[in-house]
Amino acid sequence: MDNFTFYAPTYFVFGKDTEKEAGHYVKRFGGTKVLLHYGGGSVIRTGLLERVKASLEKEGITYAELGGVKPNPRSGLVYEGIELCKKEKIDFILAVGGGSTIDSSKAIAAGAVYDGDFWEYYQGKLVEQALPVGTILTISAAGSEGSPDSVITCEDGMYKRGATGEGLRPRFSILNPALTQTLPPYQTACGITDIMAHLYERYMTNTQDVEVTDRMIEALMMTMIHEGPKVIADPDDYQARANIMWAGMMAHNNSCGVGRTQDWTSHDVEHELSALYDCAHGAGLAVVMPAVMTYNMGHNVMRFAQAASRVWGCQMDFAHPEETAKAGIQAFRNFLSSIGMPKNFEELGAREEDIEKLAHAACWGDVRKGNLGGFVKLNEEDVANIYRLML
Amino acid sequence: MDNFTFYAPTYFVFGKDTEKEAGHYVKRFGGTKVLLHYGGGSVIRTGLLERVKASLEKEGITYAELGGVKPNPRSGLVYEGIELCKKEKIDFILAVGGGSTIDSSKAIAAGAVYDGDFWEYYQGKLVEQALPVGTILTISAAGSEGSPDSVITCEDGMYKRGATGEGLRPRFSILNPALTQTLPPYQTACGITDIMAHLYERYMTNTQDVEVTDRMIEALMMTMIHEGPKVIADPDDYQARANIMWAGMMAHNNSCGVGRTQDWTSHDVEHELSALYDCAHGAGLAVVMPAVMTYNMGHNVMRFAQAASRVWGCQMDFAHPEETAKAGIQAFRNFLSSIGMPKNFEELGAREEDIEKLAHAACWGDVRKGNLGGFVKLNEEDVANIYRLML
Repeated sequence: MDNFTFYAPTYFVFGKDTEKEAGHYVKRFGGTKVLLHYGGGSVIRTGLLERVKASLEKEGITYAELGGVKPNPRSGLVYEGIELCKKEKIDFILAVGGGSTIDSSKAIAAGAVYDGDFWEYYQGKLVEQALPVGTILTISAAGSEGSPDSVITCEDGMYKRGATGEGLRPRFSILNPALTQTLPPYQTACGITDIMAHLYERYMTNTQDVEVTDRMIEALMMTMIHEGPKVIADPDDYQARANIMWAGMMAHNNSCGVGRTQDWTSHDVEHELSALYDCAHGAGLAVVMPAVMTYNMGHNVMRFAQAASRVWGCQMDFAHPEETAKAGIQAFRNFLSSIGMPKNFEELGAREEDIEKLAHAACWGDVRKGNLGGFVKLNEEDVANIYRLML
Repeated sequence: MDNFTFYAPTYFVFGKDTEKEAGHYVKRFGGTKVLLHYGGGSVIRTGLLERVKASLEKEGITYAELGGVKPNPRSGLVYEGIELCKKEKIDFILAVGGGSTIDSSKAIAAGAVYDGDFWEYYQGKLVEQALPVGTILTISAAGSEGSPDSVITCEDGMYKRGATGEGLRPRFSILNPALTQTLPPYQTACGITDIMAHLYERYMTNTQDVEVTDRMIEALMMTMIHEGPKVIADPDDYQARANIMWAGMMAHNNSCGVGRTQDWTSHDVEHELSALYDCAHGAGLAVVMPAVMTYNMGHNVMRFAQAASRVWGCQMDFAHPEETAKAGIQAFRNFLSSIGMPKNFEELGAREEDIEKLAHAACWGDVRKGNLGGFVKLNEEDVANIYRLML
């Protein structure tokens, strides 16, 4: 295990009706003038936004509003939010929505107290200062409710980049599993896939002797495999939603990723797909991950066999561990199909003729001639080959 | 899963040589005049205390010292520490040691800013205010480095009580697994047993649909079963020490105990043993836990069978689940014996003739006619019967 630091000071409020406490927690964490940031549609339709406003008003907290966050949130709305915060002297940002809304809120929070261009943070500058952010989560997926990360799509060129820094960790996150019950099965499945990706990306390590984090990752994967199909079959299964919601947070607050190298190849390879075709991030990951695994399997067959055996319950083939490794990847494919995720470029709406361009962008071809991956180092040609495995 | 809140804002600094950063972190968390609190013996002998002092001095931080913490830390030294803090205008307490030193530090921290008797906190008053505490951990066991809890023995009557409250969570905890390499095997094994107890006490729940926390607890137990025997065989196995250290923290910061009823019968039953006979807490737990499990097994055979199958690898006997449940308890007994833990009253130095008195004290007989346990409600007679199973 490598040396590390770990700091996860978000206050979690979990369970039924907890959104009614939004005002209480904004006040507790120092907010007096709030930016309410959200997407649209469902948070209005379900009455959630009204309940949150009522809770703020009850505590005498004033607010401005900025809706319109789209999946794969854009830089344009972030600039708009930053202007609004400065103009209205906002001192707290409350995100009501999923990972996109939370990531957009974090970007605004960082930009609102920075004199330069917020995009510098998405080019590698660490976020140390930001307005405090609180979240009311409506989909279990991105893990942004407990992470110091944010991913934004730059509208000038349509590519995604991430920012990070302790300043971006939410002060509080309200997790009411019932709020996720209104999600369509496809979006629910995309969330499940994203959570599985956060776990697999941490699992794919070159660090030795990481039993504790291996076991924790496996535990959360098994939870997802057990609970995921339940909510696809019955969207109103509160208990399965609750298990998924806590697993989704734990999967990405890094308590199970500390002290080990991580991969993030699948995320980097996927980001170009959702940026170019505006597909759901989780759907993209469903196509990307088995391809990346197949390409990288030879690097450490026993690690894949371990996941196959411990997580997927595959019988270990001691004479041919690579068969067990393959069986694990196949079991993952089957799981993804069973919850309705796409299998290939075609189902995703991606095009073969874009592969070179995608690989170039994924490797930051215009910025630096870079390799990708913390598990296996991959160059543009490798990445293009991985995209070809998705045809 | 039940509604819950979860807040674990301790900053963890994990790995080799991290104690040299003590001064840096005390400063970061606002300390200028520190009380260095420790036991004695090993922290002096190994040079750890000198390294910590050098780190404080490098940052220009002054300190007072209070050594002499004993296992099962006593109220007398806490009163002494509170006086010292007030006299010296201490603004930060740095615990260098194990759970006893940390718990004693927390008690002093609470008492130093309270006008009344600190013992009120150990009679049920919630700790909201306390001096900030930092820790440098020297044994993986109590989990106090990441918890809001403290257990102290009242010298007037020799009984143990616990206090809790967010004010008691350490601001930072420095976890260097190498510092635990000097521990004798017996103390190491006591720590392993305590960690297993923190996991089992959370596992024994009556809450339904808690797959995510069940799986996480099982993951941490399997880690302990895999890594524990390694450090008994080779005390210098840094990597095994590292896995145990992170598992020990995760086992007790409650991320795997949220949203479910917990038990704590074994801790309550054990506390009277270590208070009366001054045995190691972990050694007491090794004798107590299998007895409590045997007594409670009938309450939910399938829960015990689940642990037996998933954690201990016992073959599930579908026709006779109680046989699997029993096999799991036996596997736990075997594990405890294999790491050198005592099996019964005699090996612990406890006496049969004290059983009535022990049961009376465990149930707070003098304070309230109370029942014990979050899994099965137990009265004094039940508790006496449990003690008899340890003969």
